Amino acid sequence: MNKRPLILITNDDGVYAKGINEITKSLRDLGDIIVFAPDGARSGMSSAITSLIPIKYKLIKEEPGLKVYSCTGTPVDCVKLAINEILDRQPSLLVSGINHGGNHAICVQYSGTMGAAAEGCIFGIPSIGISSLDHQPDADFTECCRLGHSLAKWVIQNGLPTGTYLNLNVPIIPQVKGLKLCRQAAGRWTNEFKRSENATGEVVFWLTGAFVNAEPIHPENDTLALDNGYATLVPCKIDVTDYDFLTQLQNEEGFNL
Amino acid sequence: MNKRPLILITNDDGVYAKGINEITKSLRDLGDIIVFAPDGARSGMSSAITSLIPIKYKLIKEEPGLKVYSCTGTPVDCVKLAINEILDRQPSLLVSGINHGGNHAICVQYSGTMGAAAEGCIFGIPSIGISSLDHQPDADFTECCRLGHSLAKWVIQNGLPTGTYLNLNVPIIPQVKGLKLCRQAAGRWTNEFKRSENATGEVVFWLTGAFVNAEPIHPENDTLALDNGYATLVPCKIDVTDYDFLTQLQNEEGFNL
Repeated sequence: MNKRPLILITNDDGVYAKGINEITKSLRDLGDIIVFAPDGARSGMSSAITSLIPIKYKLIKEEPGLKVYSCTGTPVDCVKLAINEILDRQPSLLVSGINHGGNHAICVQYSGTMGAAAEGCIFGIPSIGISSLDHQPDADFTECCRLGHSLAKWVIQNGLPTGTYLNLNVPIIPQVKGLKLCRQAAGRWTNEFKRSENATGEVVFWLTGAFVNAEPIHPENDTLALDNGYATLVPCKIDVTDYDFLTQLQNEEGFNL
Repeated sequence: MNKRPLILITNDDGVYAKGINEITKSLRDLGDIIVFAPDGARSGMSSAITSLIPIKYKLIKEEPGLKVYSCTGTPVDCVKLAINEILDRQPSLLVSGINHGGNHAICVQYSGTMGAAAEGCIFGIPSIGISSLDHQPDADFTECCRLGHSLAKWVIQNGLPTGTYLNLNVPIIPQVKGLKLCRQAAGRWTNEFKRSENATGEVVFWLTGAFVNAEPIHPENDTLALDNGYATLVPCKIDVTDYDFLTQLQNEEGFNL
């Protein structure tokens, strides 16, 4: 029986993106690797699943210690299908990324990268998402791989609490100042659409916009730390229950529908 | 200036679904209503956003106190586009639903209904998702509308904490036993794919599966309460930071990447 750790890798930029290939190379020494990723770009897919049409996959590369599959589904579909159909044992780690573009603050809500990491967590796999703030197809992932490798090694050795996954973001500078443990910055996107016209003259809307950090000076928020040249690590929970407000409602006399 | 509360309604089953039309009729007495919903089914879209293609919308119905728009985007796109392009004032309430199908337990992760409710919350709108456990197109939404109306009225009067939105689920029985304040049940889906063949003989996979409640006897979990004939209300948070594990990592000497 194979005793090497098994590592499942996926992303939302597609199996041919530079980010997923760089992190795959970087993690080879830590275990056997299965890459199971979308066949093209699936940015902004969050935890979307495909239920109205069927999905399929194919093996596109195989060598000792590495198999690479491409899949027609979303990032979450990829995690589900790999676990249900491909893996012969429980992975010691799931890595989603390296994403071309940041997934700090509220981006965790929309990100296919983080959707896939959450899905691994739901299946009990210690899971991390890794994102570079650099959107470029040929981004330099040196610092991402260095930090990603250290984090992957730590998670394989120590595991993660049930229901918790990790969100690593790396700024665009040649050498990050260090890693800050952070919480998700509050804020939202503004001016989100660019009005345009299609070929027949209809008004159409392209998603765009700018993120506004709602608490720009709070020392623990991830967006501020990234702005200051640090990589950030935010532990995230699957359970979104607001326990404080639950207790408050339970004690509220007026709340009786 | 119009002093009636403004209510934004959306869903993930599409603007022509029975559920959204029933709740729209039910809430007319509480304020002016803008319905801005996908032009067809967008189930399982989570908080997905459309970035690779443009989206568009059109007004399909208008009468005093009600405007109905259909949109080519996801549920979250609908909320964003309505806020950015249509609304002339901040809504007092966003309602997403009534969904044809339950969104309890881990379904909140994948649900387009709950993605839209979360999006309203991000914009500072008191937001609720409403789901019936009945998937049928002609489901009976009487109990959903009764509870949804009471909840909507309460939320318009009392508001919700910043960053918190509500998840209401209603079981398939003629008269629910009552409303239970709950937390999101832990668990996951199993046996998720049905293997099939497409027209050319390729193996394809259809998403299916069964939910397994990981803590079936915990009295506060929403899935158990629904099984027992209660409607459930789970307050949910936008911020997914795991503060307990964050503190633990900050105090861990060995964690130094």
